[in-house]
Amino acid sequence: MCRWLAYSGTPVLLDTILYRPAHSLIDQSLHSKLGVETTNGDGFGVGWYTDGADSPALFREIGPAWSNRNLRELADHVRSPLFFAHIRASTGTAVQQSNCHPFRHGRWMFMHNGAIAEFHLVRRDLTLLVDPELYADIEGTTDSEVMFYLALTFGLDRDPPTAIARMAGAVERAGRERGVEFPLQMTLAVTDGERLWAFRYSSERASRSLFYSSRVDALRRLHPDMAFLRDASEKTRLVVSEPLGDLPGAWNEVPEGTYGVVQPEGDELRPFAPAAM
Amino acid sequence: MCRWLAYSGTPVLLDTILYRPAHSLIDQSLHSKLGVETTNGDGFGVGWYTDGADSPALFREIGPAWSNRNLRELADHVRSPLFFAHIRASTGTAVQQSNCHPFRHGRWMFMHNGAIAEFHLVRRDLTLLVDPELYADIEGTTDSEVMFYLALTFGLDRDPPTAIARMAGAVERAGRERGVEFPLQMTLAVTDGERLWAFRYSSERASRSLFYSSRVDALRRLHPDMAFLRDASEKTRLVVSEPLGDLPGAWNEVPEGTYGVVQPEGDELRPFAPAAM
Amino acid sequence: MCRWLAYSGTPVLLDTILYRPAHSLIDQSLHSKLGVETTNGDGFGVGWYTDGADSPALFREIGPAWSNRNLRELADHVRSPLFFAHIRASTGTAVQQSNCHPFRHGRWMFMHNGAIAEFHLVRRDLTLLVDPELYADIEGTTDSEVMFYLALTFGLDRDPPTAIARMAGAVERAGRERGVEFPLQMTLAVTDGERLWAFRYSSERASRSLFYSSRVDALRRLHPDMAFLRDASEKTRLVVSEPLGDLPGAWNEVPEGTYGVVQPEGDELRPFAPAAM
Amino acid sequence: MCRWLAYSGTPVLLDTILYRPAHSLIDQSLHSKLGVETTNGDGFGVGWYTDGADSPALFREIGPAWSNRNLRELADHVRSPLFFAHIRASTGTAVQQSNCHPFRHGRWMFMHNGAIAEFHLVRRDLTLLVDPELYADIEGTTDSEVMFYLALTFGLDRDPPTAIARMAGAVERAGRERGVEFPLQMTLAVTDGERLWAFRYSSERASRSLFYSSRVDALRRLHPDMAFLRDASEKTRLVVSEPLGDLPGAWNEVPEGTYGVVQPEGDELRPFAPAAM
Repeated sequence: MCRWLAYSGTPVLLDTILYRPAHSLIDQSLHSKLGVETTNGDGFGVGWYTDGADSPALFREIGPAWSNRNLRELADHVRSPLFFAHIRASTGTAVQQSNCHPFRHGRWMFMHNGAIAEFHLVRRDLTLLVDPELYADIEGTTDSEVMFYLALTFGLDRDPPTAIARMAGAVERAGRERGVEFPLQMTLAVTDGERLWAFRYSSERASRSLFYSSRVDALRRLHPDMAFLRDASEKTRLVVSEPLGDLPGAWNEVPEGTYGVVQPEGDELRPFAPAAM
Repeated sequence: MCRWLAYSGTPVLLDTILYRPAHSLIDQSLHSKLGVETTNGDGFGVGWYTDGADSPALFREIGPAWSNRNLRELADHVRSPLFFAHIRASTGTAVQQSNCHPFRHGRWMFMHNGAIAEFHLVRRDLTLLVDPELYADIEGTTDSEVMFYLALTFGLDRDPPTAIARMAGAVERAGRERGVEFPLQMTLAVTDGERLWAFRYSSERASRSLFYSSRVDALRRLHPDMAFLRDASEKTRLVVSEPLGDLPGAWNEVPEGTYGVVQPEGDELRPFAPAAM
Repeated sequence: MCRWLAYSGTPVLLDTILYRPAHSLIDQSLHSKLGVETTNGDGFGVGWYTDGADSPALFREIGPAWSNRNLRELADHVRSPLFFAHIRASTGTAVQQSNCHPFRHGRWMFMHNGAIAEFHLVRRDLTLLVDPELYADIEGTTDSEVMFYLALTFGLDRDPPTAIARMAGAVERAGRERGVEFPLQMTLAVTDGERLWAFRYSSERASRSLFYSSRVDALRRLHPDMAFLRDASEKTRLVVSEPLGDLPGAWNEVPEGTYGVVQPEGDELRPFAPAAM
Repeated sequence: MCRWLAYSGTPVLLDTILYRPAHSLIDQSLHSKLGVETTNGDGFGVGWYTDGADSPALFREIGPAWSNRNLRELADHVRSPLFFAHIRASTGTAVQQSNCHPFRHGRWMFMHNGAIAEFHLVRRDLTLLVDPELYADIEGTTDSEVMFYLALTFGLDRDPPTAIARMAGAVERAGRERGVEFPLQMTLAVTDGERLWAFRYSSERASRSLFYSSRVDALRRLHPDMAFLRDASEKTRLVVSEPLGDLPGAWNEVPEGTYGVVQPEGDELRPFAPAAM
């Protein structure tokens, strides 16, 4: 299992979000409170959008985030309006760069916490469902990357919620055909650089934790002294595996079987269910 | 492309073979003479058999061999009667541990120099031919590992030359179905810890170089002063991508379309051709 | 801070000691119970003696031990009568191979848990005390390595307890000259491949934990069913930062300000105090 | 020995300079033409200035530059008006991040190609000359880093040419006291983020190669079709270990015993000689 965060809003130095909060993602890499494991030291990744680039930048490494000097450097020098960060606790697959999140395809980024149960039983079945045109781009060996490629196969760039629903449906069907009772456990985020979608779902209806930050205007009234909140636009939003601190009023749980969209025309929460396949 | 060596014979310190020769594999990692690239710095691996273990030990890393201190340490302390060593020059796939040779399955080891031409076109077709029971064990993304799993699928543990011939046939057929003129270029070695098979073949009949060492008794007469030769048994044999030095009489080219077996009952060279699939 | 273990006795597969116990060192790398940090993921090292080699083999890496495949491989294939293993939690110095324990000089190995307080204040003073002939061999930047080189300077190869006492005295004097109240915190082990010395000391008399295993004959009477104990010689002994499990009667605390010697002529515990410098 | 480049001028994507040229630094990492070694695969580093940061960003890694995906990503997304890049071929010291160039102290960056001859003989003497206040900041074990700290000790932030001259004088004196005939071989670059100084010197007056690019206005007249030159300001300048291509008129050798300054008030070349110490 893993921990992740997605940021969208006023361009900030990555440091502001990755290192500064009391229970930052870097702190979670050593001391996760809500994760299945307390330590998330099996690689990490950051992906961010910059002006003028066709696709996001990725920085992924196989060591722990907490001691990585290059991550520390980037956090002090890179500013972005939309970025993903992920710390990994391997559920058995190899600790290698190509297994680190976020994954990228063109303008799209994807990251995940959770697992396809008994992945070794269904890996082949699911990989066969990936569009043959996309198949050769798969670089690693995680269940997460296969989920991403299934979502791409099922139309991620046209309709993300439907593509994720079809992916989840395919995973559940494949698992059940192999006798797996609860095939899917997921909290995941995808973005095309403009909007950000975050999903919380599990076959057993006991999903890993997922939170989103409150509206900046409401938070600002509660905490008029916080420098970051003074500078942040109304549209700034964070989605996280676990809260980055205990600021009262700051964090709201994404309900079970729900997804959220962070977008210019207003953020929304909607029910999520796998599509029958 | 890559460079490799296989050793079978009197137990020796890995150092004797890996570092000591004038044009050792470590030297080849910086200054290959016969390889497609002069530098083979995209990872390396050593696999060796020890008494009492069910399967060989693997040591694989993603950095260059020439500067790896752990390899230097192992070479000074590990003694083995049968080992493989490989240095990698990636032809595009990721530099990650799971893409480093040798590959292992049970008692079997496999390593390869060459490529499946236009692998991205045939990767899916070939992977589908792998026994579904074995599929989930594939850990990396190289053409070489798929070749190994095809050979396992086609009966490597019963009849290695036939399994390799069927694998080569499958690769050629898949390539030609996709319009690839010369689908396969390979020099490869496999072993079960008892015997060692080495193959040289390419679709265009212009295979990468492959050499085997002369019989120890003949060499000893030629070079009565060489300490290593005094200690080596008659059955000691090396198979290498390129000679480890220019000792007169020491190295013999494996002919095109040929495989050799190093085995207790006497070594042999035989013609090799892909099996029609 | 860190965790370590030292083994001396009947030759065993490293796996038996490193991975098999319920609360093995590998488990401690993720879930230390008695350490200052629960996670020890900033590099690790193993050093072992083999027949016929002039000096011990070292395998040290900068990632976490728990996910290192090469360590897993070595543990399954290397057998030794005397070895050190160490997992590191950096107290600030760089995570790099040359900062990983054990350190080696000729036949000697050294490893440490603890710290020289305010090392940046005394680093130069202490390094200047190192024998100029040895100075250029210092490869890393840890306080631990400087302690080792001071011990070598003060006659480690002639009289280890005296050399360690002089080293500790030098560290305390240097610290106090810079106004540090409690300059030294240490549990350390040294060996020449024949004997093993382990020290527990701290300036504030509140040293990190250190344990040694009970006599094998006594343990065997207590636990007649344990396979490992049946095979182990009477002289087999473990010294560890924290017990590898909760076997009743197996573990004994090394008292404050004490060192032990594991040696053919019989093990001993003796008081330890820094030498006035 | 190593290869490096320094860029100052119109802000560009690192890719433009690091990867695009025919004989780019990345190409030199595999196929250096003028270096002592053809392969420079023992780590690399990039340091760049960004608006608003107090000190430059560093990205340094221990693997080869040619296969590093994170470097490839940064090059595609980072834009800077002043950056250093360095590829390393170790002359014996450990391949570790803290030994990779550029080195940094506050706003200053430093990188080097060359060596202090017989460094093991003079390492202690030279390190003792480093300001005790700076001593504890030394993180690696290279001769280059000691050169940097000597320059800092001798007033780099007040008068770089004098500080470098005193450093070179100290190195030569220390070497000669130990009987080294030609103690110093160096081409080095330093910058404070505003100006850039590059030095070429060796005790034997046979220094490693160093080149600077011609004035942009002159190059533009020669090559009116080059897109990069159309966008580059008059003040854009490159200093490199070896030319990045064979554009006629583009590259000029820095003479022996010379340093250059790239600065807003006009670039200059001046004679360089070590200061008597």
